[in-house]
Amino acid sequence: MIFRQLFEQDSSTYTYLLACERTGECVLIDPVIDTVERDLQVLQALGLTLTYTLETHMHADHLTGARKLREYTGSRIAVPAMDRLDCADIGVEEGRPFRVGDLELQPLFTPGHTSTHHAYRFNNGMQPVLFTGDALLIEACGRTDFQSGDPAALYHSIHSRFFSLPDETLVYPAHDYEGRQLSTIGQEKNRNPRLGNGRSLEAFVAIMDSMNLPYPRKLDFAVPGNMACGQCPDNVPEQYRGPCEITALPQALQRVAKVGDQG
Amino acid sequence: MIFRQLFEQDSSTYTYLLACERTGECVLIDPVIDTVERDLQVLQALGLTLTYTLETHMHADHLTGARKLREYTGSRIAVPAMDRLDCADIGVEEGRPFRVGDLELQPLFTPGHTSTHHAYRFNNGMQPVLFTGDALLIEACGRTDFQSGDPAALYHSIHSRFFSLPDETLVYPAHDYEGRQLSTIGQEKNRNPRLGNGRSLEAFVAIMDSMNLPYPRKLDFAVPGNMACGQCPDNVPEQYRGPCEITALPQALQRVAKVGDQG
Repeated sequence: MIFRQLFEQDSSTYTYLLACERTGECVLIDPVIDTVERDLQVLQALGLTLTYTLETHMHADHLTGARKLREYTGSRIAVPAMDRLDCADIGVEEGRPFRVGDLELQPLFTPGHTSTHHAYRFNNGMQPVLFTGDALLIEACGRTDFQSGDPAALYHSIHSRFFSLPDETLVYPAHDYEGRQLSTIGQEKNRNPRLGNGRSLEAFVAIMDSMNLPYPRKLDFAVPGNMACGQCPDNVPEQYRGPCEITALPQALQRVAKVGDQG
Repeated sequence: MIFRQLFEQDSSTYTYLLACERTGECVLIDPVIDTVERDLQVLQALGLTLTYTLETHMHADHLTGARKLREYTGSRIAVPAMDRLDCADIGVEEGRPFRVGDLELQPLFTPGHTSTHHAYRFNNGMQPVLFTGDALLIEACGRTDFQSGDPAALYHSIHSRFFSLPDETLVYPAHDYEGRQLSTIGQEKNRNPRLGNGRSLEAFVAIMDSMNLPYPRKLDFAVPGNMACGQCPDNVPEQYRGPCEITALPQALQRVAKVGDQG
């Protein structure tokens, strides 16, 4: 298989590429509209077909690249089924494996950051791998103070779905704001300041309720835009409109092809 | 395959278990004499045969468990060939894959912490994996101020052997003193305070030469003991003699078997 951990700087989002080498099919987990062109370049350089984009949840800090990638590549948009998005092509849910070529991801219903959040579990043959979305971050977790957030639900999700896995399990989060790339379940059990060392539900809820975080700067357009699978709504402010206005795929791909020829 | 990351508290050493599921054979990388009984329990619980112990280098902070494990299980002792240890069964060197069942490790000659240090590269199918020994640690590196240490050699080893690998490469170090379990090449390139952000050879050497670290408390008996593959020399102080005096394998295994029955 082929794996890439890709980064979008403005929202510090990790997009994950997982590809089946036998069939050349791949999925992008949580692509960002700002980095669609970069994603296409990676796909082209690796000679892969984008079969699916797959969301962990309804993001409030960025617009998904799902719709633009579908327009350009014919990929299908997969989201948690309980989001009931008309714009999506398929819904995923716990108990139904999500397959891309020979690869199989297990959706895990992990509410708390949002009420329909899903993480994705994978086994690479050496250790279990978790794409934790915004549920569990490195020495942190997703905020629970807007949209459908619920700290008690997040605590239960992390304990029942993640902390029950082996310590060696790799934790690939949807964000990191300090340049870290991954963690493990054992490490988060030990070191996560909000959840580690057997911290109680009550202590966790108290921490989350007292964070006083700033209002997400993109929420007002990101959430409605993501409810339309990444269609840019009219209220995207000028400084964020750039990625909404790119329509030059043929040029982009031509440029990518040239890069490929030179490589 | 089966993978475990095991920890020895007194020297903060990680011992790695890699097993081929098809044959039931396994290797322990850098076992510690203090945790030989724990290692045997893990092997027994997993139903594995210890084929090899494998050292990254001549440790100064702990005695290897290699000799005791060989006595108890019949495992073979593998060390860097250039160590020329009469007590070892085989020597490993860069360019010759080290095989355990269907698994294949690539030895990488990475001097600097010691002059004969080797790391081991593996591919799990999802990403490259490095067992970096004491060459590269998480946001740190092995010291270079005793034995055959050489900061310039370490800088070249890390750059030529590790930083040339993909950012997704997993970094499993031989030690961590803060409860972290792993890192990646991309993360160390970004965040390692001694080596990251393109730090120069001169800057690295200056950092390493000004560390003024305390004399390793076990060096005087660990190095001669490890030159005999983990035979306890006479000068092991009273407080560290415990692991040297364990000879009760049958009892230990009996106990393990009981634990297994109860599990």
